[in-house]
Amino acid sequence: MEQFVHWAIPVIAVIALSAVAILYNWLQKQDAGTRRMKEVAHYIQIGANAFLHRELVTIAPFVVALAVLLLLAMPEGKWQVALGFVVGATFSMLATYIGMNAAVRASVRTTSAARSSAARALIVAFRGGGTMGLSITGLTIVGLFGLLTLFGVNADTPERIHLLVGFGFGASFAALFAQLGGGIFTKGADIAADLVGKVEQGIPEDDPRNAAVIADQVGDNVGDVAGRGADLFESGADNIIGTMILGSAFISTYGWAAVLFPLISEAIGAIGAILGILAVRGDEKRNPIVAMNIGFLVSGLFAVVSYYFLATAIMHDIRLFYCLTMGLVAAILVSLMVQYYTGIDQKPVKSIAEGGLRGVATNLIYGFSWGMESAVPMIILVAIVNVAAFYVMGGGLHGVLGIAAATLGLSVMKGIIMAADAFGPIADNASGIAEMSGLGADVRRSGDVLDAAGNITKAITKGYSMSTALMTSVVILFAYLLSAAKLAGIAHEHMAAFATLRGTELTMDVAQMVRYLSLAHPLNIAALMIGATVPFLFSSQAMKAVGRTAFRLVDEVRRQFREIPGLLQGKAIPEYSRCVDIGTSHALKEMVAPTLIGVIFPLTVGFVMGPWALAFYLIGVKVIGATLAIFMFNAGGAWDNAKKYVEDGHFGGKGSEAHKAGVIGDTFGDPLKDTAGPSLHILIKLQNILAITLLPLFYHYHIPWE
Amino acid sequence: MEQFVHWAIPVIAVIALSAVAILYNWLQKQDAGTRRMKEVAHYIQIGANAFLHRELVTIAPFVVALAVLLLLAMPEGKWQVALGFVVGATFSMLATYIGMNAAVRASVRTTSAARSSAARALIVAFRGGGTMGLSITGLTIVGLFGLLTLFGVNADTPERIHLLVGFGFGASFAALFAQLGGGIFTKGADIAADLVGKVEQGIPEDDPRNAAVIADQVGDNVGDVAGRGADLFESGADNIIGTMILGSAFISTYGWAAVLFPLISEAIGAIGAILGILAVRGDEKRNPIVAMNIGFLVSGLFAVVSYYFLATAIMHDIRLFYCLTMGLVAAILVSLMVQYYTGIDQKPVKSIAEGGLRGVATNLIYGFSWGMESAVPMIILVAIVNVAAFYVMGGGLHGVLGIAAATLGLSVMKGIIMAADAFGPIADNASGIAEMSGLGADVRRSGDVLDAAGNITKAITKGYSMSTALMTSVVILFAYLLSAAKLAGIAHEHMAAFATLRGTELTMDVAQMVRYLSLAHPLNIAALMIGATVPFLFSSQAMKAVGRTAFRLVDEVRRQFREIPGLLQGKAIPEYSRCVDIGTSHALKEMVAPTLIGVIFPLTVGFVMGPWALAFYLIGVKVIGATLAIFMFNAGGAWDNAKKYVEDGHFGGKGSEAHKAGVIGDTFGDPLKDTAGPSLHILIKLQNILAITLLPLFYHYHIPWE
Repeated sequence: MEQFVHWAIPVIAVIALSAVAILYNWLQKQDAGTRRMKEVAHYIQIGANAFLHRELVTIAPFVVALAVLLLLAMPEGKWQVALGFVVGATFSMLATYIGMNAAVRASVRTTSAARSSAARALIVAFRGGGTMGLSITGLTIVGLFGLLTLFGVNADTPERIHLLVGFGFGASFAALFAQLGGGIFTKGADIAADLVGKVEQGIPEDDPRNAAVIADQVGDNVGDVAGRGADLFESGADNIIGTMILGSAFISTYGWAAVLFPLISEAIGAIGAILGILAVRGDEKRNPIVAMNIGFLVSGLFAVVSYYFLATAIMHDIRLFYCLTMGLVAAILVSLMVQYYTGIDQKPVKSIAEGGLRGVATNLIYGFSWGMESAVPMIILVAIVNVAAFYVMGGGLHGVLGIAAATLGLSVMKGIIMAADAFGPIADNASGIAEMSGLGADVRRSGDVLDAAGNITKAITKGYSMSTALMTSVVILFAYLLSAAKLAGIAHEHMAAFATLRGTELTMDVAQMVRYLSLAHPLNIAALMIGATVPFLFSSQAMKAVGRTAFRLVDEVRRQFREIPGLLQGKAIPEYSRCVDIGTSHALKEMVAPTLIGVIFPLTVGFVMGPWALAFYLIGVKVIGATLAIFMFNAGGAWDNAKKYVEDGHFGGKGSEAHKAGVIGDTFGDPLKDTAGPSLHILIKLQNILAITLLPLFYHYHIPWE
Repeated sequence: MEQFVHWAIPVIAVIALSAVAILYNWLQKQDAGTRRMKEVAHYIQIGANAFLHRELVTIAPFVVALAVLLLLAMPEGKWQVALGFVVGATFSMLATYIGMNAAVRASVRTTSAARSSAARALIVAFRGGGTMGLSITGLTIVGLFGLLTLFGVNADTPERIHLLVGFGFGASFAALFAQLGGGIFTKGADIAADLVGKVEQGIPEDDPRNAAVIADQVGDNVGDVAGRGADLFESGADNIIGTMILGSAFISTYGWAAVLFPLISEAIGAIGAILGILAVRGDEKRNPIVAMNIGFLVSGLFAVVSYYFLATAIMHDIRLFYCLTMGLVAAILVSLMVQYYTGIDQKPVKSIAEGGLRGVATNLIYGFSWGMESAVPMIILVAIVNVAAFYVMGGGLHGVLGIAAATLGLSVMKGIIMAADAFGPIADNASGIAEMSGLGADVRRSGDVLDAAGNITKAITKGYSMSTALMTSVVILFAYLLSAAKLAGIAHEHMAAFATLRGTELTMDVAQMVRYLSLAHPLNIAALMIGATVPFLFSSQAMKAVGRTAFRLVDEVRRQFREIPGLLQGKAIPEYSRCVDIGTSHALKEMVAPTLIGVIFPLTVGFVMGPWALAFYLIGVKVIGATLAIFMFNAGGAWDNAKKYVEDGHFGGKGSEAHKAGVIGDTFGDPLKDTAGPSLHILIKLQNILAITLLPLFYHYHIPWE
């Protein structure tokens, strides 16, 4: 069985990557429409690749410098950690590059397909998204399995698993750039296009006379597609690495499978995603969300069946099946919660829209309140899953493995959810291309149906990826603590005393380590306080960055309307590329300050307050970051849909006071839901993996307070 | 010396309460102005007392029921805890009743004084606020010293100090009602008055034709004066009780003074406040804030000198002097930070105002960002003070006493800061009375100067009381843990092993208890997560309550304009009292859901997850609650001043786009800064004291997980 697993993992990775190539080719073969459509798509493609190129140029020196630093500073495993870091960053960028290019190509082909069949358009858009979904799972498996083999980690050298952390660090680092840079760009362009176009000039959304309109479309690709892809790539990597480190404590129980277990789960996710993507079939009459739900169902059922096999035939522990399935169920519950708090026909959105009847401020107050409330059930769900998985496995370190299994179960749907998520911006872009190419109203209408479905999938993905991030960070926390215990020289068999409240024999060295982790010390409490502030600081900087980028673009679009003769009359073409350029260079510049926050704070806490206080700092960052991010996503999503609800003819419809209030709420919510919120994921995960990578340094060189 | 201290404390309490009586009489003797002014003031007074009366009627059955429950359920000290609870609640209401009535009388006399002398007006307003400041300090000392004597707690029975917690619980409970009910009322009335008056009818603020205008004035008194008074009364009580419980571990070192120490600090604060209030002298030319700063300076200097005496002559430990002074310094730094983030001539406010040039959304994005950022330095300051005070005292339990001392130093300025805070709504009301009584422009102008100064003092008080609450909650956390250790039967001399990272002999029973408090347990992490969500849930409910109350009042004001003939022409008088009635009944009804949140969550966590996980839950509530609250205060304050900045003629001045954006930002910020934010203090403190009161129940009856 071990032999089978050992070979199955790389084979499945190859299958996943072949599926990427097949899907990509299939997409290329679809009709790309009229000359005008191809032209618009060409602009978007050039802009998106220009952004990625500039991002690459910006990130490359940082990657090299950090790799050199790791090479010099790490007390052990120098080249492995440094190499892993470079591979992680490279694979992340590669996956997002492939996925984003597929998405860009899919958009125009979706528009084209929509001219003849809405069902066909759905398939094109979903498969476009699927390319991203499969390339991230495939490359994660290839990268981690490859490094495992290269570093010669096996059942006799389980402690070498720690060498893999470099890969996660690299993936986190690349993701921060992709998500934060992309997020600043996309919202800066979106707000600028709206402020000058819709508000000042009174021209429709996506009107080709608006110079920022291509930048806005590019933003959908670099922010929503590439950014979220890098985010999920990282989540997967961190999650697998953390579980592997934990698993290495269970080789005596489960054999080498204890370590390979998360990679098997990832492989199950890859096959499930392929099946799910193939199962999504459009239908002229049904809501597209129904077709996608069938895809989810297929993926989910495949995972449940495979998990039963994994738990019974490979791990020989049925309790792991319960934990894995629990994670899957949690994923469904999260999606239902998000649908309630942001769904257009639910109470929260309606009451926000109604608030607009009494003025803008009441619309804002309601959106803010519902957003805050929405974080509560989701975080409590994660808390309950943690405790339940822990006790299903009987508590102790086994219990922690149960939490890791539940996290794997939550994240197994990654491939198909990523496909559904990328579907959103593809459909959005398709609508934009239809508008800019002057296609008929019926094409645009079927585009709008896909677009509305895309709004839901985007919201679900955010909630999903945040709960994954929060669960993952608990796993990583324990991996961190076990690694620290190893550094402290605590014998392997004594570590079982962690994560138990009583019973197990408490040796003096474990008692001492537990004391380091006690809440009853002001250093730890202070670290927790500092950790709690970081998501606030980070979000504030990210939002100000969006504001400044939007200002620059507003000025540029105004300038073009002023200086290019005949532009408003449609007799001239705006300089789209200038807006893309300005947006790109600003977004990448604005990214530096928040990135530094994400790096300098944990470094300072780690060296000044020590590795134990750092654990409290991290839990502060995670818990507050997650709560804040969910609030931001859902408030933003609800404001967006409250506007749409009014536009559908409620409370006075378009042009009414309630609509004006709705537009303001939506614009205010944009940077919350698409910049600050998603970037908080990355902040959380980057700090996690940075802490675990640099732990040996913190351990040896921190200030000894007592 | 012990004898001297023992007598000095009650004597100073009597002095403080006599000063209250003297100030109150002095106020009554001041001229209350014209018949019209008296009439307006009469309306306000009736409304404010009607609110307090209804609040009393609402709260009384709860107090009785809870007292009976405590009497039945507490395993020991039944009648003492129940009696303390009733006394705490009663004293809190008494202090706020006296203080609010003084404030209501001071307002009209301030208006009257402003007719002849701005300097005189300042003195009247400040002394009006001072009455509240002194009544809370005086009654705190009387209550706690009285119960201490009644329960026969002395150096031979230090464990009986725990009986005092009932007083804190009662104070917390009353404060929740006062702050939350008052906060919902005041912002509901304020928003309604603005929406119908300024926006719909285009009549000025405080115009007597607006039916909600008296309710708005009443709101200033019941929300800002009574609410904040109850808040600070509670902070003081909790802080003193927590420090006394901690101090009881130090009787062998410092004698009985270890326990009386916080009461002495409170007494120093009382005398300092009297001196400070007398030192505030108006001057026609100077900014009123300068006069108040002199008052602060006098209070602060008196405290420093007295602290030196306290540390050297009574406690015989100079390190305590450093800690106490550190707290005082922190209070100054907090005030400077608040002034930066909300000050009208500082960068944040200017950039928010400028954001309005590009639309409402950019004003909102900037306000939100700066508000988030503002929480960072304040929380980090608190973290640093904690660690610094801890290590100045050499760490360990002594270190924790250092933190308690720093907290006392921070809160010693309570009396004078409360005076300055109540000054705000008094000045605000005075302006309103001037407007409603049709006084000349010069009277209104000098009122406006006082009003602007009041905005600053209100913002400072919020930041100050939040940092006090956060520091206090660390003290209470340790008091909680020590009480739990006592219940666990850990010997007194072994407790020194808490709050030390290494060194002290670690006995097995302490090691076991430390293990309960380890971060390396999913139950604790889950509790922390749940705790983090509660401030979000609570704020969202409080804000929705404001929204609903405002809606009802909007409908009522609209109805009066529609149905009362000649109202808009000024030929008829609106039915002010109906608005007050509606606001009162709604606010008190709306208060129930958030109150239940504050009670049910800790009860559930305590019984289901146990007393140790509850400590993690509490730290989650505290840290997130404090960060969120500071963000809310400062964002709200900055939006308010950004609007004022535009009104001062910048970016287009009144009526411009930037101004419209400013008005919306201000209205949105109102419930953040005046309802949700301040109520979060109380939530934090209520949960703290509830946990410590019910600890014996949680300890004996929680679900045993392992």
